[in-house]
Amino acid sequence: MTRISPQRTRVTGNPREPVRVLVLGTGQMGSGIARLVLARPGLQLVGAFGRRAQRVGLDLGQALDLEHSLGLPISGNLEQLIDETQPEVAIQATCSRAVDAATEISVLLRNGVNVISIAEEMAYPEYGAPALAESLHWEAISHGVSILGTGVNPGFVMDLLVIALSGVCLQIDTITVQRVNNLSPYGLSVMMSQGVGLTPQAFREGVENGTIAGHLGFAESIHMIAHAVGWDIERIDESREPIVSQLRRSTPFVEVEPGQVAGCHHRAIAYAGGRPVITLDHPQQIEPQLEDIQTGDRIEIQGTPTINLAGTPEIPGGQATIALAVNAIPRILNAPPGLFNMTDLPVPAAMLADARRFLPEEMIEIRYD
Amino acid sequence: MTRISPQRTRVTGNPREPVRVLVLGTGQMGSGIARLVLARPGLQLVGAFGRRAQRVGLDLGQALDLEHSLGLPISGNLEQLIDETQPEVAIQATCSRAVDAATEISVLLRNGVNVISIAEEMAYPEYGAPALAESLHWEAISHGVSILGTGVNPGFVMDLLVIALSGVCLQIDTITVQRVNNLSPYGLSVMMSQGVGLTPQAFREGVENGTIAGHLGFAESIHMIAHAVGWDIERIDESREPIVSQLRRSTPFVEVEPGQVAGCHHRAIAYAGGRPVITLDHPQQIEPQLEDIQTGDRIEIQGTPTINLAGTPEIPGGQATIALAVNAIPRILNAPPGLFNMTDLPVPAAMLADARRFLPEEMIEIRYD
Repeated sequence: MTRISPQRTRVTGNPREPVRVLVLGTGQMGSGIARLVLARPGLQLVGAFGRRAQRVGLDLGQALDLEHSLGLPISGNLEQLIDETQPEVAIQATCSRAVDAATEISVLLRNGVNVISIAEEMAYPEYGAPALAESLHWEAISHGVSILGTGVNPGFVMDLLVIALSGVCLQIDTITVQRVNNLSPYGLSVMMSQGVGLTPQAFREGVENGTIAGHLGFAESIHMIAHAVGWDIERIDESREPIVSQLRRSTPFVEVEPGQVAGCHHRAIAYAGGRPVITLDHPQQIEPQLEDIQTGDRIEIQGTPTINLAGTPEIPGGQATIALAVNAIPRILNAPPGLFNMTDLPVPAAMLADARRFLPEEMIEIRYD
Repeated sequence: MTRISPQRTRVTGNPREPVRVLVLGTGQMGSGIARLVLARPGLQLVGAFGRRAQRVGLDLGQALDLEHSLGLPISGNLEQLIDETQPEVAIQATCSRAVDAATEISVLLRNGVNVISIAEEMAYPEYGAPALAESLHWEAISHGVSILGTGVNPGFVMDLLVIALSGVCLQIDTITVQRVNNLSPYGLSVMMSQGVGLTPQAFREGVENGTIAGHLGFAESIHMIAHAVGWDIERIDESREPIVSQLRRSTPFVEVEPGQVAGCHHRAIAYAGGRPVITLDHPQQIEPQLEDIQTGDRIEIQGTPTINLAGTPEIPGGQATIALAVNAIPRILNAPPGLFNMTDLPVPAAMLADARRFLPEEMIEIRYD
């Protein structure tokens, strides 16, 4: 069916050429995103930006352990890279905090590049960085491009999926989400923020002094849900407990001896109208299967009707974040200008055909013919 | 955060007044929708339309078994009713087929009323009635209003939820959805289309001659999923088998003796690239608990990663359809003009606060102050 949408559509690229994609970050997530962009017809990986000086100049093919060169040296100069590669969309996988993400995002916006960020706080920056969110929103509008924050969590399992399920409810008393997952696929920065490999004593000190954050994104998920259903959150109580390993566990990035910490059991309870309305429970650890811990996701909405949905093993965080970021490309190219979260745009979907198929050709042809 | 959206927002009503809602249909679904509209702050039920001549003139309060009159007589004249009640949104619960729904929808559109339809074929009318869908789309645009097809199935469990989950996948081989549900809450028209109360022989004849449709919506769900992920469906194989009861089952609308049909086990397998890619399995029957049948929903996406999600009992169809229809009110008022399905708009969400809270006040104030 021919649709003419009043929304902006892909104005920065030639419709018959692949979508030009830039990746920011060459860690575990950035590398996975780059691999998926390379594999997907209709997408063209035009460059990679890296923050770490020692990787600058390295060919991306080498950084990804490919057998061939990609002819794409990792750049440390974002302005110059944009100028040379003329991307339509950039996927940012360099950081977690909104304030940390904002400088790169601003450079991209000012150069007319749409941005998909997996920085946890960018999933709902209205909460953690409202002034910054406001400013990025207007900057995006003034340059005619869009920004979307996404990722498995925050961005999907503990918020978007919960909100979608709430849509079948007439009334809701409480929402409880539990995600028991495996941290093993993640890199060093995640291990450190979860306290993996520490003694329980050092873990508790890290929680006290703020170096052990546990899961990043509870506040974002809670406020995303609350905003969607119309609850006013009064306070959030959080707890972070060490998951002490009974035996030896290891990943390429960390080794845990018996008695040391294999992960962080992080919980958040949000209150509205004086009562607990949202509980997010998220024990994260490396190699949970070694102690017969069943991983999985579980959503329970107590209301009319009550909804229970669960799956095991958990939706794997690394793959899911990579997929969500790349699958969001048509969503961001079809969105009007501005800053968006996952509840603002149509549901994500796997992109199993040429990426150009998901862009409204009619509009493109009208603009370009 | 203040957002100015380039999309159309509520232009037909006064922003400080409740949203004026008209309900079409006074059967099981229409009555439930009317009750929810009455209960939700920020919504005002302004009228009810009924097709059945014997209900015309009856006060809606009486039709809903309320203890008091609502002062809203059920009308059989839609043009006149719109003229008298000036609704902003109409929820249509009068029929299942797009051709049957289209006349009422056209009248609503021409009078500037946004439409939410639970007619099964309206969940994805591009499949079953493409010319009609095209014409309704342009009619909506020319009158500056929107149409959304929704409901539990098609519209949510076997399509939207599946599509959302596919968003975490890099690649997908097959999608299988099973929904084992309880038909007991439904009215006579559903019992007849499922063959409930017939002999197995009469059931098979009904399947042959087309009077027993089984589930209405497999083609819509399959094409909605396929369109979202980029598969080209080559054919759909369907089977409808009688669920023969071992004992006596009854509902307010039907009685089933042992050996008679308690429901229809309807399956559809869709092929793309010469192989089965989507399997929808949907045994529907009254009173399944009498034979210890566990109801539930199960989604399995075989791919990278493989996703399993299941819940029991099933998401209850009647309540869910009623909730989705009413919860869609802000979605349709915030949408640009045109015809939409559930994958075109932001995810549904429970509306747990005053409905006006979910409409962008800034735009309204700019327009009205």
